[in-house]
Amino acid sequence: MSELTLADVYRARQRIKGRVVATPLVQSMALSRIAGVPVYLKLETVQPTGSFKLRGATNALAQLAEQGCKRVVTASTGNHGRAVAHAARALGMEAAVCMSSLVPKNKVDAVDALGARVVISGKSQDDAQVEAQRLVREEGYAYVPPFDDPRVIAGQATIGLEILETLPDASTIIVPLSGGGLFSGVAFAAKCVRPDIAMIGVSMERGAAMHASLAAGKPIFVDELETLADSLGGGIGLDNRHTFSMTRELIDHVVLLDEVSIARGIVHAYREERLVIEGAAAVGIAAVLDRAVETRGTNPIVIVISGCNIDIDAHRRLIGA
Amino acid sequence: MSELTLADVYRARQRIKGRVVATPLVQSMALSRIAGVPVYLKLETVQPTGSFKLRGATNALAQLAEQGCKRVVTASTGNHGRAVAHAARALGMEAAVCMSSLVPKNKVDAVDALGARVVISGKSQDDAQVEAQRLVREEGYAYVPPFDDPRVIAGQATIGLEILETLPDASTIIVPLSGGGLFSGVAFAAKCVRPDIAMIGVSMERGAAMHASLAAGKPIFVDELETLADSLGGGIGLDNRHTFSMTRELIDHVVLLDEVSIARGIVHAYREERLVIEGAAAVGIAAVLDRAVETRGTNPIVIVISGCNIDIDAHRRLIGA
Repeated sequence: MSELTLADVYRARQRIKGRVVATPLVQSMALSRIAGVPVYLKLETVQPTGSFKLRGATNALAQLAEQGCKRVVTASTGNHGRAVAHAARALGMEAAVCMSSLVPKNKVDAVDALGARVVISGKSQDDAQVEAQRLVREEGYAYVPPFDDPRVIAGQATIGLEILETLPDASTIIVPLSGGGLFSGVAFAAKCVRPDIAMIGVSMERGAAMHASLAAGKPIFVDELETLADSLGGGIGLDNRHTFSMTRELIDHVVLLDEVSIARGIVHAYREERLVIEGAAAVGIAAVLDRAVETRGTNPIVIVISGCNIDIDAHRRLIGA
Repeated sequence: MSELTLADVYRARQRIKGRVVATPLVQSMALSRIAGVPVYLKLETVQPTGSFKLRGATNALAQLAEQGCKRVVTASTGNHGRAVAHAARALGMEAAVCMSSLVPKNKVDAVDALGARVVISGKSQDDAQVEAQRLVREEGYAYVPPFDDPRVIAGQATIGLEILETLPDASTIIVPLSGGGLFSGVAFAAKCVRPDIAMIGVSMERGAAMHASLAAGKPIFVDELETLADSLGGGIGLDNRHTFSMTRELIDHVVLLDEVSIARGIVHAYREERLVIEGAAAVGIAAVLDRAVETRGTNPIVIVISGCNIDIDAHRRLIGA
């Protein structure tokens, strides 16, 4: 297990307060009927950057700022990149986001609009990563990892605190599972507060790197495949230091979903919950719709709805508009 | 002006705490770019019943419960009806919701699913209202008005408190304007805290009863017309006791919108903010898109996004256009 303590999570909450939304936990009537127990949605969709990633990034950057660091870099073009750009601006820091020349213009523009320096380099995510490391070595930037970092994990863990402070009887929390930063953070805080809570991780069948690594007993490489839950794609790092061991220790059950189920989750969120959510955020709903999650007595289930950054035209096609 | 005090609003907040969501106030990057100042959205869409109405209903019912009342009745089939049903269940009270036999089945089912007693009577909203009054006279129910009631106004006013506690520099608040319960509540609390704040009410051109009444200097009857902002339809009551005089006193500017603008607001909310909202909730966004709201220096504007209960197929058609 990691050296993380609950005190670190409280410190993270102090640091991110006022910069990150303490998100609502709202009962879903439709899912409660289906599950037969109260089902609550933790709405990270209302974070300023549209995903939970802002918590971890803000906690990491605030700690770097305390240490006098003024320049941060990352290579993510998605929710983590946006989160780092947003947090840097809020904290008066400079952020560089490295991307390959193949990244679509709308993603470049989104990061640019948040005031970050966009650094285009090479033709792959690996090339962008190499450039980020160069900025660290040669230009004094601090690298902000997307998930495998205790500061990032402690930031995401504030979600677990918020859930159990509001709903101490929750017996199950369902979390999207990718690199494990969100999962291990939420699970760590939740099990500190309520050791018997069931922590369920949900991934797509197509390219579930953490699930394959757990099965192999060590971090392994998994081909990234196209999926509606694209934010859950990518590896966990063969040199993973924190999230693999934490997830292995804290996880009670993994659910894997096919693409039809993920699509059903997105459509349910729109039609029944009036929520626009990305595929990665729909997996918890989809797992409940698939009846893949056991209930415990009449205790509530909580689903972390991780973000809303779906391509809007892809969303429109899914909902049949 | 009404006898309402800021202490009443604080009491309301105490009463509704834990039963109503203290909703997020999230900056809209897209609207901030358009307006040239920071624009924030107050997301009442995440209330358990999908609209701000839960605040006023919960405050009214909690006060009735303190007085030993166990049965409440209303005649609304929309957001107020749902709010009363939900609040009654949460407080262990019995709610009756009177409707005419012409109310569509999905609206009847929505109230029924919240555990309320559905009372079908006659063929019009007026018939349902007569039945509600009969339940008050003959069966000992307490009537819960949708807007013209100090308890309801104090509940909605908690939105104004939350806004200025989070964003004390806000110089303008934009609020959907219908019967005036939401408007006068938010405006009352906001002007107690910040007397120079600009309070903008927004209605649809088609059947804006409060606007017509303000122009006439007294509550007048206005034909109800079909509009995308259907929750804003209906009269303010010729015997209006509170919201007409409060709105007249507190309002700085009224914006009236045509149907094209309201549709544009709904589409913007979906495409740019990833929000599914009803027409009534889109009027503030539409007013900013129409550049119908003056800015003051660089101070932030807040838009109250009142609810998400739009017919989902109507929404799909709008965003598919």
